[in-house]
Amino acid sequence: VGPEHSLDLGGIFPPLATPFSPMQEVDYAQLEGNLRRYAKVPFRGLVVLGSNGEYPYLAPRERLEVVSCVRRALPRDRLLLAGSGCESTQATIELTVNMAEAGADVALVVTPCYYRGAMTSATLVQHYTEVADASPIPVVLYSVPANTGLDLPLEAVLTLAQHPNIVGIKDSGGDITRMGLMVHKTRQEDFQVLAGSAGFLMASYALGASGGVCALANVLGAPLCQLDHLCRKGHWQEARDLQHRLIEPNTAVTRRFGIPGLKKAMEWFGYYGGPCRAPLAPLSPPQVEELRGAFSANGWL
Amino acid sequence: VGPEHSLDLGGIFPPLATPFSPMQEVDYAQLEGNLRRYAKVPFRGLVVLGSNGEYPYLAPRERLEVVSCVRRALPRDRLLLAGSGCESTQATIELTVNMAEAGADVALVVTPCYYRGAMTSATLVQHYTEVADASPIPVVLYSVPANTGLDLPLEAVLTLAQHPNIVGIKDSGGDITRMGLMVHKTRQEDFQVLAGSAGFLMASYALGASGGVCALANVLGAPLCQLDHLCRKGHWQEARDLQHRLIEPNTAVTRRFGIPGLKKAMEWFGYYGGPCRAPLAPLSPPQVEELRGAFSANGWL
Amino acid sequence: VGPEHSLDLGGIFPPLATPFSPMQEVDYAQLEGNLRRYAKVPFRGLVVLGSNGEYPYLAPRERLEVVSCVRRALPRDRLLLAGSGCESTQATIELTVNMAEAGADVALVVTPCYYRGAMTSATLVQHYTEVADASPIPVVLYSVPANTGLDLPLEAVLTLAQHPNIVGIKDSGGDITRMGLMVHKTRQEDFQVLAGSAGFLMASYALGASGGVCALANVLGAPLCQLDHLCRKGHWQEARDLQHRLIEPNTAVTRRFGIPGLKKAMEWFGYYGGPCRAPLAPLSPPQVEELRGAFSANGWL
Amino acid sequence: VGPEHSLDLGGIFPPLATPFSPMQEVDYAQLEGNLRRYAKVPFRGLVVLGSNGEYPYLAPRERLEVVSCVRRALPRDRLLLAGSGCESTQATIELTVNMAEAGADVALVVTPCYYRGAMTSATLVQHYTEVADASPIPVVLYSVPANTGLDLPLEAVLTLAQHPNIVGIKDSGGDITRMGLMVHKTRQEDFQVLAGSAGFLMASYALGASGGVCALANVLGAPLCQLDHLCRKGHWQEARDLQHRLIEPNTAVTRRFGIPGLKKAMEWFGYYGGPCRAPLAPLSPPQVEELRGAFSANGWL
Repeated sequence: VGPEHSLDLGGIFPPLATPFSPMQEVDYAQLEGNLRRYAKVPFRGLVVLGSNGEYPYLAPRERLEVVSCVRRALPRDRLLLAGSGCESTQATIELTVNMAEAGADVALVVTPCYYRGAMTSATLVQHYTEVADASPIPVVLYSVPANTGLDLPLEAVLTLAQHPNIVGIKDSGGDITRMGLMVHKTRQEDFQVLAGSAGFLMASYALGASGGVCALANVLGAPLCQLDHLCRKGHWQEARDLQHRLIEPNTAVTRRFGIPGLKKAMEWFGYYGGPCRAPLAPLSPPQVEELRGAFSANGWL
Repeated sequence: VGPEHSLDLGGIFPPLATPFSPMQEVDYAQLEGNLRRYAKVPFRGLVVLGSNGEYPYLAPRERLEVVSCVRRALPRDRLLLAGSGCESTQATIELTVNMAEAGADVALVVTPCYYRGAMTSATLVQHYTEVADASPIPVVLYSVPANTGLDLPLEAVLTLAQHPNIVGIKDSGGDITRMGLMVHKTRQEDFQVLAGSAGFLMASYALGASGGVCALANVLGAPLCQLDHLCRKGHWQEARDLQHRLIEPNTAVTRRFGIPGLKKAMEWFGYYGGPCRAPLAPLSPPQVEELRGAFSANGWL
Repeated sequence: VGPEHSLDLGGIFPPLATPFSPMQEVDYAQLEGNLRRYAKVPFRGLVVLGSNGEYPYLAPRERLEVVSCVRRALPRDRLLLAGSGCESTQATIELTVNMAEAGADVALVVTPCYYRGAMTSATLVQHYTEVADASPIPVVLYSVPANTGLDLPLEAVLTLAQHPNIVGIKDSGGDITRMGLMVHKTRQEDFQVLAGSAGFLMASYALGASGGVCALANVLGAPLCQLDHLCRKGHWQEARDLQHRLIEPNTAVTRRFGIPGLKKAMEWFGYYGGPCRAPLAPLSPPQVEELRGAFSANGWL
Repeated sequence: VGPEHSLDLGGIFPPLATPFSPMQEVDYAQLEGNLRRYAKVPFRGLVVLGSNGEYPYLAPRERLEVVSCVRRALPRDRLLLAGSGCESTQATIELTVNMAEAGADVALVVTPCYYRGAMTSATLVQHYTEVADASPIPVVLYSVPANTGLDLPLEAVLTLAQHPNIVGIKDSGGDITRMGLMVHKTRQEDFQVLAGSAGFLMASYALGASGGVCALANVLGAPLCQLDHLCRKGHWQEARDLQHRLIEPNTAVTRRFGIPGLKKAMEWFGYYGGPCRAPLAPLSPPQVEELRGAFSANGWL
């Protein structure tokens, strides 16, 4: 048994989609409406400005306003993780500090990636160390190779897990062997592993992950919290049946149709979805139908 | 609950390394020696002439002799799977028929891959259908993208799962989301999913896989059978601890050091390893040391 | 013979490295110093805030100041291309308009890439069409898969080449077959193809490219202009010998050592290099030695 | 100027498609018929049993018969290159020796690739050195990453170029920067570089390649020899126009439609095409139409 964790990240976190008005302005009223509905789901907390929050499309000022808005609406017993990663170390530090002031509990810091050929393990360790040293709030690493084209190397994760202000990783790569090894090799550290997608959530729990940050939680939050519960209780057979029914919906709102698909599906379940910012384009009618099929074929619609 | 399976593939199968003499001839005496030792491990059966058997380096005649040799040594209650995949459909059929005559219970058929740009889902369905139609023994599909550069598409797997003479797949890709979806979508078929590597064995079981064909079983057969047992009994916490300790040894004898590493490690555990055929080269002394570390750091040496 | 080009992009453009002080502030005095030295080289123009300008590390305000600074220093007969691509369409339009006001002659617009799974050909055509419609200055497309993980699809290029305000592409992918086909299929359009790296510059000219935007031109501007000259004059044998000597230095300042290598090499040739912004790290002494060898082995040092 | 070459590889070589009867047997009469037609084209020689010859689908015995058949039909002043690469070093040596006895002038040896993770530069140098040491005829290296998933590393090429019995490389990767550097770094060796596809043939010549082994030469042999001629004479403008018109047909018979496309197109130009061996499937009618369009749109049909 490893050490106590200074901050319990156990549970499900939806990486909030950012609602936009038809004119593509951030729609804070709709954001608050969604938050009211999410309040009834036993999430451990929320992530704002992750990949599903269209963070690359928001100006720094908008990002801070979103954090403030969510902070005001969120009960204190729910954690607020805010995406603060930028390409440069300095910009990341500044945004992290500002997000802490705006009320974020934890900074979720994506790997810088534009110069991916230069992002060696040593370079990334240096980047994250400087950010974690300067951050007034704990840092969670964020590796999402589908977007960044870059996997935070395991050796970098293991080094960074020893930093007192780095408390975990959201890993969206889906390599379950790597997930298991990360849990195993950090078992003596104050460090937790979060599955970055619902497709491999149960497998991650089986290997020892603490929780999940899952796009699908924007849509099917209660079933994902139920899956979390079943895994914690050791009801693996029921968990398996539930996990099986979540894979196709999850693929549909992530790899297959991305954020436009996620926002469309949210509307079917009582949330505000709305448009994405350009260049992300709305689904075509046949795509909407295929998306719907992924939910209905698994008993969700 | 799905249908009964006509052939129970539940359990662990080592994909046997093929022993060569110092002159790189197949060494049947050493093969028989290894088989005697494996007889004490509760394997469900054996695979011969999978990737770890260096099958691309064996002439068709040698491949049949290996099958015959293993068949003679193997108790009837253990299944003998034999790799019979060739690049052309016709050659695959001929070798499959011959291997059945030589005593194979099941044909393990790797995806043809040299013209991978032309290996569409439809083309692969056609190939496997012809092979399964002609084969006197059941067929297990074999997808191993690390070697073939080709993932047997999920839609092809689902179509082929309906063929009465195709009873399963060995999937070595390690995408646990795909594994779960394969189990889910074939639950009404006479079809079983086998994990192709020990790194994601427990996760595969958690998602509903039936067994595992794991290179590491050449070395650590008993612990892998123990992991199989723990998963079947629902002892997931113990299973996790055991799985964690198997990841690094597994990586060492597969992706990191390949078959030369596997054969070297076999020697430490009482089996004959010996050389590989060229161009596969023996490990350097520092590589041997790193390999050894992967076992000793996890309590196996 | 195709149509006249409304804007002649024929020749060499260095994509300027952005000089930083030891405190990582933009150093405008050093920038002006470099510009004075580049004024003696017969470049067709300059690119600011391309990948080699560390544009992802500059705030929008800094980007505009750099454009203004270079505009003031640059003779009117030299073209000023400015990188104005952002992730969102709206931000790209705003920055493009602002850069035009700051004195840019042409906007160089990189493909948005964070949501690369959603960046279909149709989506990219829509994005670039909106940008080109709104831009007061001509637009050059910019495809740089090593950084973006995304190749602007050929069919998108061919569609966009018909837009009256899109006048060319900088293609850094290095696929010479694609370069030739782009020239061939746009021969009836007001559209020019620029090679995005010195490694395939001569080959691109042989296939009909108009010019080159080459990181190496920051260091070896005169030889690259000489190579341009030899190709235009049809002195292909001399061109080949020169091209051969440029490949290793070019690889060293791009793929091998990136911008830190480029800036280090600039110092050996009389320019200010200085540090990069973090997380880009300076070269180690052995790396500097290897970099130096790439120049000296080919007779440049 | 480098040394004289012991064997002149300058010119165009079609990598012969292997004709099969409707029953998928090798059709030697049709092969001889094609050879009679090819005799009128000023090729430097022929390649048999390259990738386009479906060599992985031919038994060793068939491979030797094809070599013998072509040798009998081919005038002595034309070079016969025969693909003899197998996965194991020993099998490659045996097949190379047998092909030399059957009349091959040169052995074309593809990189072994099934265990690509283990095919390090050192391993490949060792493999090729053993083969070249044992071969009674000169060896040409063969790198075709689209099929093998493996690029023969440049450092391995440079080492092997010094072997007295290795006289060149067929490089099908299409990286023109690499082609130029190979020519440059082997300029002191008895070593020639052959472009492996017609798409980048002229660019390769511009950089100093000696010739080309081009699938398209099965169909458009005369135009390719004309392109070779124009490049040698320094008529680069005419060469460019011709090269431009060859890119789309070349892509159609290689990457886009593969060998089934190649064989279909051969029939339009007076050669026997016929079926491929399974699993390679014939084109659908819409594919045939698209294939035809690639030729007609460029003035070849």
